[in-house]
Amino acid sequence: MDNDIILLGHGSGGKLSHQLLDELIIPHLSQNPSAGQNDAALVEVGTGRLAFTTDSYVVDPIFFPGGNIGDLAVNGTVNDLAMMGATPLFISVALILEEGFGKQELSSILASMRQAADLAGVSLVTGDTKVVPRGKADRIFINTSGIGVVDHGLTIDGGQARLGDRVIVSGSIGDHGVAVLCGREGLEMETDVRTDSAPLNGLVQELLSLGGGLHVLRDPTRGGVATTLKEIAVQSGVTITLKEDALPVNAGVKGVCSILGLDPLYIANEGKLLAFVAPELAEEAVRLMRDHAFGKDAAIIGEVTATGGGRVQMETLVGGMRGVEMLSGEQLPRIC
Amino acid sequence: MDNDIILLGHGSGGKLSHQLLDELIIPHLSQNPSAGQNDAALVEVGTGRLAFTTDSYVVDPIFFPGGNIGDLAVNGTVNDLAMMGATPLFISVALILEEGFGKQELSSILASMRQAADLAGVSLVTGDTKVVPRGKADRIFINTSGIGVVDHGLTIDGGQARLGDRVIVSGSIGDHGVAVLCGREGLEMETDVRTDSAPLNGLVQELLSLGGGLHVLRDPTRGGVATTLKEIAVQSGVTITLKEDALPVNAGVKGVCSILGLDPLYIANEGKLLAFVAPELAEEAVRLMRDHAFGKDAAIIGEVTATGGGRVQMETLVGGMRGVEMLSGEQLPRIC
Repeated sequence: MDNDIILLGHGSGGKLSHQLLDELIIPHLSQNPSAGQNDAALVEVGTGRLAFTTDSYVVDPIFFPGGNIGDLAVNGTVNDLAMMGATPLFISVALILEEGFGKQELSSILASMRQAADLAGVSLVTGDTKVVPRGKADRIFINTSGIGVVDHGLTIDGGQARLGDRVIVSGSIGDHGVAVLCGREGLEMETDVRTDSAPLNGLVQELLSLGGGLHVLRDPTRGGVATTLKEIAVQSGVTITLKEDALPVNAGVKGVCSILGLDPLYIANEGKLLAFVAPELAEEAVRLMRDHAFGKDAAIIGEVTATGGGRVQMETLVGGMRGVEMLSGEQLPRIC
Repeated sequence: MDNDIILLGHGSGGKLSHQLLDELIIPHLSQNPSAGQNDAALVEVGTGRLAFTTDSYVVDPIFFPGGNIGDLAVNGTVNDLAMMGATPLFISVALILEEGFGKQELSSILASMRQAADLAGVSLVTGDTKVVPRGKADRIFINTSGIGVVDHGLTIDGGQARLGDRVIVSGSIGDHGVAVLCGREGLEMETDVRTDSAPLNGLVQELLSLGGGLHVLRDPTRGGVATTLKEIAVQSGVTITLKEDALPVNAGVKGVCSILGLDPLYIANEGKLLAFVAPELAEEAVRLMRDHAFGKDAAIIGEVTATGGGRVQMETLVGGMRGVEMLSGEQLPRIC
């Protein structure tokens, strides 16, 4: 019976999301069976390459430590474009509002969107507003879609990971998911964890100077670093080995995760990226990131240790090796 | 108090929607105070002009006579691009699903989207799926955003209406809104009214052969023909005079409207366009439309009778003249 209906886990970004995509959405919608594997589509228009992406935001609560649904929606779409090596230019804003939603809250969400757009250097150029009766939506849902230009000849996507590549994360993991969780009513936790929501297009611009040695960029949002790396391992047909002791995790995130039994490796980030870089350029990549405001805690966290496999494994703190799978089910619903 | 919260009417496409846009959304989001007046944004990318648009669909019911939320979402975005004189190319699909939604219903909605995309000649290239807990959304909401190319030098938008222009509608009005209304539970009406939902890009392609004599294209969706014409009158700074006896209205639509006290002039269409054409080209424009599958009942319904005013008026059947205002409040919520 559960096979016939949509479950919360179908929106997790993890295993069930991939099943829904592979079984239902892609076969129906797409002429291209490998569609849906990257953060944005690359399309040819005239003589140029564009990146095109869309995301809806249903985060709960809509205001959380360090941000709100508005800046999250702008940064998320900026980042999806940036992860294709594109320069984000134009963003659309579509609001679904519940009847009775406060104009003051809307106003401050819109102000945050504009501020985020200005910070990222993108323009909010078109939009739409729908209103549904009370009880038919939860306050506000925002869709942002975006267009970016790809003005270089590099191919950067989840299928480009190669043997020997170093896996670099641009900073601490799990901050966004834990911040949203701590913002939920009824969960009174004394932490200083704030969302890491940030535009990563500037950081990507720096990394593009690595040229052909930059193979994969991906932001580990829903499903966290574990799910994102598993996607890349499958897409590129490689085995990735992580070192647990290299993972940057803030003390506040560690604390909340240990109390609640959560694994930071599966928690959403909104201002971090994973880069796969040829080994000889890895130190340079880390240096470029650390010189940037949004990459100060960048670290090499693993490498591609074999071709084939489509697997992720991790050397644990105690010296063992364990397999890392995609998020299954839904750890934290409505995290973005 | 009501001034501080979002009302259903803010999603009507009529007067309250415009107030919300002008007072809150545009001032916050846009650097361009005239933004939000057209169906899509025109943006410069590299050496070319692109049109970019977004729309969320929250129609209730999701299946209605002649269509469903899926083909509606594709056609609506195709049409918003076409109304800027653009050739629609790429569409994104973002789903917000309520936990418990049936996979079979989802499947048939997705199949309709693909069918509509194939008919319009566009590709569904990128997407997103979010799931919210039961009771936090109403089954399914769909956002489609779209990119089109403008490969001609014409300027076609709501600000181009000129004195003497003939106003042409591509066919009968009110079909979509009445079909959705008749599809609602509890309203058992014996009619054969079906949605007119259709892709209008082919029809627009024909009209582009009129060259510089084609001034405005707009599809009269939420708020209907009345609201759309009022928008154009304001945007172009002209007075538009309609002839009531020239308005094509199907018998079924007339019947439902007279029973329920609705005015077809304010009811949403999803497969019709309004064209403003120089007088010497008007007959040719009607002929082009009537030769096309989606313009068989095209008719000249009025003209631009004065510069200035920003007004719409109508010569009624009984020979009087009445003012036509934007939809105020919400006549039929969740019509698209």
